[in-house]
Amino acid sequence: MKTGVAIVGASGYGSRELIRILLNHPGAEITLATSRSDEAPTVAAMHPSLRGRIDLRSEPFDPDRVAAVASVAFLGLPHTASLAVTPALVERGVRVIDLSADYRLKSAATYQEWYGHPHTDPQGLRAAVYGLPELFRAAIPAANLIANPGCYTSTAILALAPLIAHDRIERSGIIVDAYSGITGAGRAPKANLHFPEANENLVAYGVGNHRHTPEIDQVLTDLGRAQDSSQPAVEVIFTPHLAPVDRGIHASIYATPHRPATRTDLLELYRAFYAASPFVRVVDAPPGTKDSAYSNFIDVTVNVVRGRIVILACLDNLIKGASGVAVQNFNLMHGWPETTALL
Amino acid sequence: MKTGVAIVGASGYGSRELIRILLNHPGAEITLATSRSDEAPTVAAMHPSLRGRIDLRSEPFDPDRVAAVASVAFLGLPHTASLAVTPALVERGVRVIDLSADYRLKSAATYQEWYGHPHTDPQGLRAAVYGLPELFRAAIPAANLIANPGCYTSTAILALAPLIAHDRIERSGIIVDAYSGITGAGRAPKANLHFPEANENLVAYGVGNHRHTPEIDQVLTDLGRAQDSSQPAVEVIFTPHLAPVDRGIHASIYATPHRPATRTDLLELYRAFYAASPFVRVVDAPPGTKDSAYSNFIDVTVNVVRGRIVILACLDNLIKGASGVAVQNFNLMHGWPETTALL
Amino acid sequence: MKTGVAIVGASGYGSRELIRILLNHPGAEITLATSRSDEAPTVAAMHPSLRGRIDLRSEPFDPDRVAAVASVAFLGLPHTASLAVTPALVERGVRVIDLSADYRLKSAATYQEWYGHPHTDPQGLRAAVYGLPELFRAAIPAANLIANPGCYTSTAILALAPLIAHDRIERSGIIVDAYSGITGAGRAPKANLHFPEANENLVAYGVGNHRHTPEIDQVLTDLGRAQDSSQPAVEVIFTPHLAPVDRGIHASIYATPHRPATRTDLLELYRAFYAASPFVRVVDAPPGTKDSAYSNFIDVTVNVVRGRIVILACLDNLIKGASGVAVQNFNLMHGWPETTALL
Amino acid sequence: MKTGVAIVGASGYGSRELIRILLNHPGAEITLATSRSDEAPTVAAMHPSLRGRIDLRSEPFDPDRVAAVASVAFLGLPHTASLAVTPALVERGVRVIDLSADYRLKSAATYQEWYGHPHTDPQGLRAAVYGLPELFRAAIPAANLIANPGCYTSTAILALAPLIAHDRIERSGIIVDAYSGITGAGRAPKANLHFPEANENLVAYGVGNHRHTPEIDQVLTDLGRAQDSSQPAVEVIFTPHLAPVDRGIHASIYATPHRPATRTDLLELYRAFYAASPFVRVVDAPPGTKDSAYSNFIDVTVNVVRGRIVILACLDNLIKGASGVAVQNFNLMHGWPETTALL
Repeated sequence: MKTGVAIVGASGYGSRELIRILLNHPGAEITLATSRSDEAPTVAAMHPSLRGRIDLRSEPFDPDRVAAVASVAFLGLPHTASLAVTPALVERGVRVIDLSADYRLKSAATYQEWYGHPHTDPQGLRAAVYGLPELFRAAIPAANLIANPGCYTSTAILALAPLIAHDRIERSGIIVDAYSGITGAGRAPKANLHFPEANENLVAYGVGNHRHTPEIDQVLTDLGRAQDSSQPAVEVIFTPHLAPVDRGIHASIYATPHRPATRTDLLELYRAFYAASPFVRVVDAPPGTKDSAYSNFIDVTVNVVRGRIVILACLDNLIKGASGVAVQNFNLMHGWPETTALL
Repeated sequence: MKTGVAIVGASGYGSRELIRILLNHPGAEITLATSRSDEAPTVAAMHPSLRGRIDLRSEPFDPDRVAAVASVAFLGLPHTASLAVTPALVERGVRVIDLSADYRLKSAATYQEWYGHPHTDPQGLRAAVYGLPELFRAAIPAANLIANPGCYTSTAILALAPLIAHDRIERSGIIVDAYSGITGAGRAPKANLHFPEANENLVAYGVGNHRHTPEIDQVLTDLGRAQDSSQPAVEVIFTPHLAPVDRGIHASIYATPHRPATRTDLLELYRAFYAASPFVRVVDAPPGTKDSAYSNFIDVTVNVVRGRIVILACLDNLIKGASGVAVQNFNLMHGWPETTALL
Repeated sequence: MKTGVAIVGASGYGSRELIRILLNHPGAEITLATSRSDEAPTVAAMHPSLRGRIDLRSEPFDPDRVAAVASVAFLGLPHTASLAVTPALVERGVRVIDLSADYRLKSAATYQEWYGHPHTDPQGLRAAVYGLPELFRAAIPAANLIANPGCYTSTAILALAPLIAHDRIERSGIIVDAYSGITGAGRAPKANLHFPEANENLVAYGVGNHRHTPEIDQVLTDLGRAQDSSQPAVEVIFTPHLAPVDRGIHASIYATPHRPATRTDLLELYRAFYAASPFVRVVDAPPGTKDSAYSNFIDVTVNVVRGRIVILACLDNLIKGASGVAVQNFNLMHGWPETTALL
Repeated sequence: MKTGVAIVGASGYGSRELIRILLNHPGAEITLATSRSDEAPTVAAMHPSLRGRIDLRSEPFDPDRVAAVASVAFLGLPHTASLAVTPALVERGVRVIDLSADYRLKSAATYQEWYGHPHTDPQGLRAAVYGLPELFRAAIPAANLIANPGCYTSTAILALAPLIAHDRIERSGIIVDAYSGITGAGRAPKANLHFPEANENLVAYGVGNHRHTPEIDQVLTDLGRAQDSSQPAVEVIFTPHLAPVDRGIHASIYATPHRPATRTDLLELYRAFYAASPFVRVVDAPPGTKDSAYSNFIDVTVNVVRGRIVILACLDNLIKGASGVAVQNFNLMHGWPETTALL
């Protein structure tokens, strides 16, 4: 029997990709889609590419209705909106995979500092499992609340994890210089995302204050301290940019090794670290975002330049950076092979 | 002495190009820029590409102020807004070059039909000269009110004028299939112009009801009837589309010749027709929009396919399709060589 | 048991999409990929996006080897190259789905005229079935040689078929004005496809002499004459253009109705005509190429403008225009539901 | 009287921009254009955008011919090709502005190491002046041989110069993470620059071994040692990438200050440093490449993030990064205002 699945907040790009993936999942059935009342009344009207694939009206959110037809809810909501619906779902026994940032930061104070809003569900925060299967595969099957990671964060964390876990690099001065395709900025029209502004343009934004910063720091710090609790905190210097592509994140990451390293050794380290992770491809040449676009893969390579380690990593921000990893989590939660519906 | 020039409505893409061109004009000095109070306070803040080029605050519109500092006003306003300011300027002796559609249609009734707004300045409408120098060069120098043509319209009209003027084609069933770069849709963010929607997309809009239709019909009908007043009216079937480029219009136009025609003869006809027009380039191979982008040229070629005439024409919608031709008009009005500041 | 499938000519974009689709097909197993000796030695090296999906070396073409491991061969070869390998495959009992143009034109003379090469396999030409399931669904299951249609041709034919089959339009003067994404021009670098030339550019090519012209004419003529053998031949005026998008064909098609038509009636006609065709979506608003990109759908709408019928149609040139329809044919040949692996 | 100017190697994108700029220069007349015999016979045929602007045939290179008609030659040649023609021009009294890399590196050994070719003109190498006016304005007027800087190099050098000249940062571990538009890779079609490969793609290349590395190192090292000869050499870690835009370089640069710095102080430092440089715009917000595209400006801003200095800089690779700065040099060499023809 298929698992009933609700898409809460169905109108965004991430939800569109999620629906597209789930429509091919042998163990999932989308039984409900919710959206705001001012949005299109059907999923196909919201997403013309899904016409002929799904015949579902969109409804206002109602936790009882969700619980009646679904045992899992994917939340495609803006941050703070997930906070408002998650407790009601969890207490009705609905397992939640939240694609917003609301349950990613373990500290309510840090959440408030970066998101400007008090965290109103400390119990959920404690219970939430960070849904990055490559690092936390064991914790996911039993989770009732998954904090699905951010797109920049997954890129940076997976690119750096082998070096942190094996304590190969300095914890400070790690530079994450990353470019995102413009679907990453969401579906609401804005001046800087207007085609004539964004096209043929490369531009940085959120320099030094992008909200994915504390998320990268937290996960990598915890990863390092899991090996050696005396490790200093990771503090990345993160510069996001917009690039005129639909999909994809390209991160170029610079770290200082404790001891001289060779490219060959590092590639071997990465390949061993990710040997059991079907969606991480450790490659020899610089990956392009196009290689992993429209897929759940992340491509990573490592170089050594003048004594620094230079890591290059690419993924599709809407899939491996959002909806694909959400389905990876769904698969782990329900005993499906991790790759189900994702290849 | 330089002519004082006011830019009324300075925040749009057309105004930006206009300012850029006028800054290099030996006979023009921009003395005033106006904009709405909710827009950026300086021209350079509105248009980062102009930083370091112009140091002018933006002011609210005031006809006395315009008249005090400028003898010509370029109106970069939305339609109906030009109607609201033109009479006050004209009566103060300011010559107006209106880039909106407000004075292009000779019939107030047609204006109301297509723009949904009564035409409140019939006197201006009578006085206005349609500012397409290649066809109306003689009338422009003395004009006090120029209706600067639309971008699709200039493309279609210049592409068809030699055939109409020489009565070579049937007047009905002329098909104008045209694609525009997205600056043509203006600077205000909209859902369909959001980068992730417009990028990698080709899509028609306004099928059969785009407002440039009556403008093309009118100018070509009048052109034909100027030769032979018994000519039937021109009625084009016009389909505009959006293409993911910043600049440029590509029109592919299909017409039925009265008598069999050859490509060689037609190219000769076009070259003769435009011999005195420095911005029309009659070319042998299909022109790309990129050939004329960022310039005031229009490129045209003609083919004969299975007895039909196929005309291909390209121009930059913001320059030859808007601000460049406005400066061409300015040049003619002030006795400057037509190409001044435009090459 | 899965059907063994060979990809002959695996290095192009069409073959890449074909492999990606077949990897998800429950009834197909790719057992062989061939390529020229100067190309990359593995499928994954040819197509970085397929890394981690397929572990197959590429081999030189050998018909005995194909016959030993495959019962179906998809030919992703340039025209004339398919001619050179098809007879050997067919005589060894391998069913062929040819994605080139070599078996599409029923007349060897027409083939020679348009492709500049004598047709060396008249027997194959007689046996070949034109693989457009929406029109020839009944003939495909038994075919041993499928001539898979061209991308522009599928778009134009499916857009016009209801009007031709129901004899609603004049046969001459049909205008097909179409734009293609640049993958349609193949993978070999060329001057006009160099990024700085093709980007931000719209340009026509092959005006009046593109090779898809006789293919469109032939299929539509035959379709009309199947209803009424006295029908005149269809002769389209076809103008292809390049647009700076990866994927997609947008066709704007103009036809003259025998009698006045209404949009409502025409949409109904189209919906009835394609009621049993799961990949044709008859839509109300102008479709964008992005709606059907990365899918096997074709989107079509119809308008009436000043007495002319204006049809707008979009499909993904690599999928519905090439590899997707090839798999549709494969499904029909093997008794799989037509949509298998294609949704 | 106008200076006669020869364009040696007229077919590339840089030469096209150079010609476009010089056509508007009141003091220059293009008297000669040379190209290889297998290229188009006229400048307008090479560059369709210049049709109607220039009526000049292209000739094979002949130093006597150049000397007969020109007193300045701009070399738009690939590296090593400039080496082959420069001595003959210089000895005939023609002043050379070389846009290739052949005279940029002061050490013949370094040249050979990075370009794989011995430097055959040591005398020219000694005489050459590095043509970056913002740093070497005084030396340019008298120069007979200008080594025009590279595009990545100008971006990085101008972005870092104030910090090096004022000894504010560590010399090692400077990270230059830069993206270039694809015109930067030249006009020759290549597999990775084929539209369907480059479009919608972000990809690094030349990681740790791009030839602009030693040029950046050399100029910045010399700049630092000009203040204090005991300064260590600058060694940048430089990662170039391709982005799917026509024009523009975006560099994000990370440096470690000797002492804590504030953004305000740094912006002031930059503004003072470039007060006399009309093409450097020190801006407050992150600049986009589009702000300076099609212009000779470079936009720079500075931030401090977690104790690191983050510099963001953008310029148009073909203009400020190549042909525009070449004309800046021409202006300085001939006593024209530096901005002539460049605004």
